Amino acid sequence: MNTIGNILRLTTYGESHGAAVGGILDGCPAGVKISLEEIQAQLDRRKPGQSHITTQRKESDTIEIISGIYDGESTGTPISFIVRNKDHHSSDYNNLKDIFRPSHADFTYIAKYGRRDHRGGGRSSARETIARVAGGAIAKAILNHYNIDIKAYVSQVGTIELKKHYTEIDLDNIDSNIVRCPDSQIADLMIKTIEDAKAHQDSLGGIITGVIKGVPAGLGEPVFNKLHADLGAAMLGINAVKGFDYGSGFDGVTLPGSIHNDPFYSEDGEVLTKTNNSGGIQGGISNGMDINFRVAFKPIATLVKTQSTINKKKEEVTIQLKGRHDPCVLPRAVPIVEAMAALVIADHILLQRTRQI
Amino acid sequence: MNTIGNILRLTTYGESHGAAVGGILDGCPAGVKISLEEIQAQLDRRKPGQSHITTQRKESDTIEIISGIYDGESTGTPISFIVRNKDHHSSDYNNLKDIFRPSHADFTYIAKYGRRDHRGGGRSSARETIARVAGGAIAKAILNHYNIDIKAYVSQVGTIELKKHYTEIDLDNIDSNIVRCPDSQIADLMIKTIEDAKAHQDSLGGIITGVIKGVPAGLGEPVFNKLHADLGAAMLGINAVKGFDYGSGFDGVTLPGSIHNDPFYSEDGEVLTKTNNSGGIQGGISNGMDINFRVAFKPIATLVKTQSTINKKKEEVTIQLKGRHDPCVLPRAVPIVEAMAALVIADHILLQRTRQI
Amino acid sequence: MNTIGNILRLTTYGESHGAAVGGILDGCPAGVKISLEEIQAQLDRRKPGQSHITTQRKESDTIEIISGIYDGESTGTPISFIVRNKDHHSSDYNNLKDIFRPSHADFTYIAKYGRRDHRGGGRSSARETIARVAGGAIAKAILNHYNIDIKAYVSQVGTIELKKHYTEIDLDNIDSNIVRCPDSQIADLMIKTIEDAKAHQDSLGGIITGVIKGVPAGLGEPVFNKLHADLGAAMLGINAVKGFDYGSGFDGVTLPGSIHNDPFYSEDGEVLTKTNNSGGIQGGISNGMDINFRVAFKPIATLVKTQSTINKKKEEVTIQLKGRHDPCVLPRAVPIVEAMAALVIADHILLQRTRQI
Amino acid sequence: MNTIGNILRLTTYGESHGAAVGGILDGCPAGVKISLEEIQAQLDRRKPGQSHITTQRKESDTIEIISGIYDGESTGTPISFIVRNKDHHSSDYNNLKDIFRPSHADFTYIAKYGRRDHRGGGRSSARETIARVAGGAIAKAILNHYNIDIKAYVSQVGTIELKKHYTEIDLDNIDSNIVRCPDSQIADLMIKTIEDAKAHQDSLGGIITGVIKGVPAGLGEPVFNKLHADLGAAMLGINAVKGFDYGSGFDGVTLPGSIHNDPFYSEDGEVLTKTNNSGGIQGGISNGMDINFRVAFKPIATLVKTQSTINKKKEEVTIQLKGRHDPCVLPRAVPIVEAMAALVIADHILLQRTRQI
Repeated sequence: MNTIGNILRLTTYGESHGAAVGGILDGCPAGVKISLEEIQAQLDRRKPGQSHITTQRKESDTIEIISGIYDGESTGTPISFIVRNKDHHSSDYNNLKDIFRPSHADFTYIAKYGRRDHRGGGRSSARETIARVAGGAIAKAILNHYNIDIKAYVSQVGTIELKKHYTEIDLDNIDSNIVRCPDSQIADLMIKTIEDAKAHQDSLGGIITGVIKGVPAGLGEPVFNKLHADLGAAMLGINAVKGFDYGSGFDGVTLPGSIHNDPFYSEDGEVLTKTNNSGGIQGGISNGMDINFRVAFKPIATLVKTQSTINKKKEEVTIQLKGRHDPCVLPRAVPIVEAMAALVIADHILLQRTRQI
Repeated sequence: MNTIGNILRLTTYGESHGAAVGGILDGCPAGVKISLEEIQAQLDRRKPGQSHITTQRKESDTIEIISGIYDGESTGTPISFIVRNKDHHSSDYNNLKDIFRPSHADFTYIAKYGRRDHRGGGRSSARETIARVAGGAIAKAILNHYNIDIKAYVSQVGTIELKKHYTEIDLDNIDSNIVRCPDSQIADLMIKTIEDAKAHQDSLGGIITGVIKGVPAGLGEPVFNKLHADLGAAMLGINAVKGFDYGSGFDGVTLPGSIHNDPFYSEDGEVLTKTNNSGGIQGGISNGMDINFRVAFKPIATLVKTQSTINKKKEEVTIQLKGRHDPCVLPRAVPIVEAMAALVIADHILLQRTRQI
Repeated sequence: MNTIGNILRLTTYGESHGAAVGGILDGCPAGVKISLEEIQAQLDRRKPGQSHITTQRKESDTIEIISGIYDGESTGTPISFIVRNKDHHSSDYNNLKDIFRPSHADFTYIAKYGRRDHRGGGRSSARETIARVAGGAIAKAILNHYNIDIKAYVSQVGTIELKKHYTEIDLDNIDSNIVRCPDSQIADLMIKTIEDAKAHQDSLGGIITGVIKGVPAGLGEPVFNKLHADLGAAMLGINAVKGFDYGSGFDGVTLPGSIHNDPFYSEDGEVLTKTNNSGGIQGGISNGMDINFRVAFKPIATLVKTQSTINKKKEEVTIQLKGRHDPCVLPRAVPIVEAMAALVIADHILLQRTRQI
Repeated sequence: MNTIGNILRLTTYGESHGAAVGGILDGCPAGVKISLEEIQAQLDRRKPGQSHITTQRKESDTIEIISGIYDGESTGTPISFIVRNKDHHSSDYNNLKDIFRPSHADFTYIAKYGRRDHRGGGRSSARETIARVAGGAIAKAILNHYNIDIKAYVSQVGTIELKKHYTEIDLDNIDSNIVRCPDSQIADLMIKTIEDAKAHQDSLGGIITGVIKGVPAGLGEPVFNKLHADLGAAMLGINAVKGFDYGSGFDGVTLPGSIHNDPFYSEDGEVLTKTNNSGGIQGGISNGMDINFRVAFKPIATLVKTQSTINKKKEEVTIQLKGRHDPCVLPRAVPIVEAMAALVIADHILLQRTRQI
């Protein structure tokens, strides 16, 4: 299915080498102040060719808003938008028509649909995420009315890891370098390791950390749409994502409860916790503390390096992929992670309005 | 919301100290062979008091099927079931009425609903998972028609870790010990560490690993309901879960693409991969290989040990929790993980029937 | 599917001759004052055996609330309820096992599911509507917080028609007679025509008119969930219903626009219309005027009279139905119509809370 | 909400005087043969200016398919399409900015959203139905694989009524005249009455009858998504619709059950009924007979005639509407009714695939 959300629902469409990608954001409340420039700015953070460590595909990724915004405000009707594809070199993919690229979705699409649009990965291309970033930018505009702030950054690339906790770093520095790691020294190491991978015709994965500040207590559903479950599903829906955790996460499993529990205290009439292993969510519901989470990305499957695989006739073949690809998707995935988080939080903001008479 | 699934939809109800817990499974196709004994057997794997390392609350957890099954087969109508609560000591919770237990959902429920049923955690109690295990047992009955097999086991408790990969162990041994770790030596260590935690009035977390065999290629949606995203959301919806990954998961982020990619080959006309870092899912769609995943559980928040916290008036208080609790929930969570996985896979089996004309 | 609603969602289960019927109402906001007596009172208006013109099946239809209500208020968690079946004479249906009753769902269930529970019509029995009346009673409790009032009455039975417009009659008289027509003279004629039909082993249809007062302007979605579309779907989901219209309805098609249009005027600062051909809904959205609608019921298919039909082997047979049936369902359908209307309006009340920032 | 359907889901966007209208059809199975010409042909049946009895707005309504179709077949991914608005005279509406037109959605939009795009009715304009006709044309392409045929025709305009039953007329004649009534004599009368209304600056309503042939037995859900309930909701979602009935409908309420019941018989191994008061649906599920239904349309609210109303300040004003409008929408609504029916039937075709193991 191509829709996410309960009240605020984003539906996306479009393929990498088709005419365009785009989406419809339904359920955006009327009266949200929305700036086209801000949407475009988020798309620019995602767009290809933004630095030497990203793909060199040239796309301006200019968005056209078709409906739902009037005089700078949402009208309550569906917000539709479209981004035309321009620089698709579909001929780069001609030799792939009958080949299953390793760890790509070529084979699984055939298994699912009995056919596939082989040009550029079709719908499985990360180009689809343009629509998410656009939808997420509008969700961020909703959150602005609530002073909720969402930030994501690259905390690991391959083996290069930013070991500092998010509370120890300046989140305003995220966009100060091309790899989007707020620690400039670690950022340099990350850039270097990506350059190395590129030089070796290889690719790298890593981890993006997300932080959401200002979420009021009470968001999230107790059972199946726990706030972290919806966040997790949103993140796991991003291309190349292999894992998600929040708060203490996988590292928390070794702690005893007496250390892991977050003691409550009160200050200035507010309910706070001394530690935040809960990651701002208890019993699936936000408690007002920062929400923090991690998203694990595998190394991208597209390699320039020669690989062996099979074709549709199940014959062994070798391939060398042309096309223009990112050696590491994480720098460009930062705005995608933020967008998906914004969509989830804004959706729960609206849902929570219905939970008390 | 209290419903999960697209075609096969489970809705649950009930609180820990109310009259009963139960659920409705809607969308089960007609003609599925369903054994009441098998459903009860799964509930027995989850029920309290099954060993000395679980809570001593005494519940037979006997299920009554109210509708939707006739002559041992599903009729296509909603399958409703109920499990009465019997041994609830609600008075154990009287002193908690106005207190926010650390890392529990007491405070967040108040924030969400303006009130809460304080007895036994109400809806946030893991007793709600009875309905999931029952629903999952029916989902397993659907999967039996497809020869799909789901197994989960405890792979880590606190710092005690089963380092072997699932392919190196005999998954038929899972229920051979009370901790549900298929390696008897590691199981003994896990049991001992749980006994220690209990003696110290403390609690432990850990990891459950899941393995799904026999899933045909083609299940899962390309964008927002990727098979692993739906699995992840289902797992993150289980009480105390803090993280989810699949295939190479968080460990895969350090590998270069040239090692991480799973080369295709063919044998006996089948399409297979030499490695399985993909965890059986590529582009969100199953590729026919085993699906494997990990679920991280925090140490349970309920401690016998004295803790400091605040009450509704935001005064500092100390609490010592009575009630009967598990020092480590993982042994009893194994059937819950299996149940949630079964619900997701069965749902996608049905959905996939609609994907080609 | 067995769920209705967007935010406020009712899922029902159970068969006529199974153990029970019941449901789960999810999404009820916390803090709604709910009286068990009022729910039971609505069920009593629906229950069999309430007068000599209804079926003589004896059921107390006593409801048990299992979850979601605490100290007389909703807690925000799912409200589950169950009504046990007691007086089912399943043996009455033994001879129907292989026969397709005319205009019943016997044949279509077999076509759909490949099997059916032949006892009492199974899920197609109007006994399922118990769950709707219970859910609707809770929805009415929500509407009480908004001073919205829903009334339905029998306006036609066979050829006996109450020609007065709802504005000309006293809606407080609806329950003053057993046929639930607020005009006592017409009611007597209706009762007599039902007695006649019963004496002739025949059945009758008719029309129920609904009136909803106090709905604030702004409810309903502009395109696919227009308020009248959701009302219509809810009514068309009631057993034996063949048609729905609202406002001027089918009669309005002969009027020219210059007469049909409802001119706006203002009084005491309120926006009102001089006529109400719109039936309180314009462009799918409530305008604050009364909402009125009609629901057409066919004569019930179950006849004592001998009928010819075919069996599963497609052989011609004659049947004479035992079982205890209503010669006319309309008197008992009044609370069902009200319940479905209440569920729809309450759902849109909640949805509307999300439509402006 | 702007989405309809369960498996096959249409989401629409766009306003009358915005840049474009369009939609996304999600859930279309892969492999459906889709002809762009056939989609355009349906749009041409709906487009303005097609005859002297429709609005003279000039729009080519040329569709662009953006995604989801490749080499003449659906790929399984979302089918997105767009129709640009060209001939919008927004200035025609300047004088309406602060006025509530009688029986229009101007006031209710303000009540709902606190604002509205006043140009041309915005989202409440029937121009939105372009997306439904396009989506419906694709649904018809799905139904072609099943030999299901959907036809609708104008059976009443104002007081001019086609009294013949659909079985007595040649449905291939529907498009043989500009009013889309298959009886040429009645069609002439209808055209004349519309010309009269236009001359009097007035408008007319009427009835469209729909007929669906070839639906296999078994479609539709027993309780809340009865086939006729989903059809009814789809029809009631069309602009200006005030009522829906099927089979014997409102006329059936006066018949006794002994006449209304449809006796089963068998011929050539098929199960048939001698009469079809059921309208092809029993217990909410198709029985294989023709499905027939009626849709009541009010006279369109836009009149050239001077009318009195109020403005936002609640002052009395008179208006005379410019803009170019249909004196009677029914001829252009025929393809819309067909489209909505096709969407519902195709959705249930897919859903039914999941109902037996």
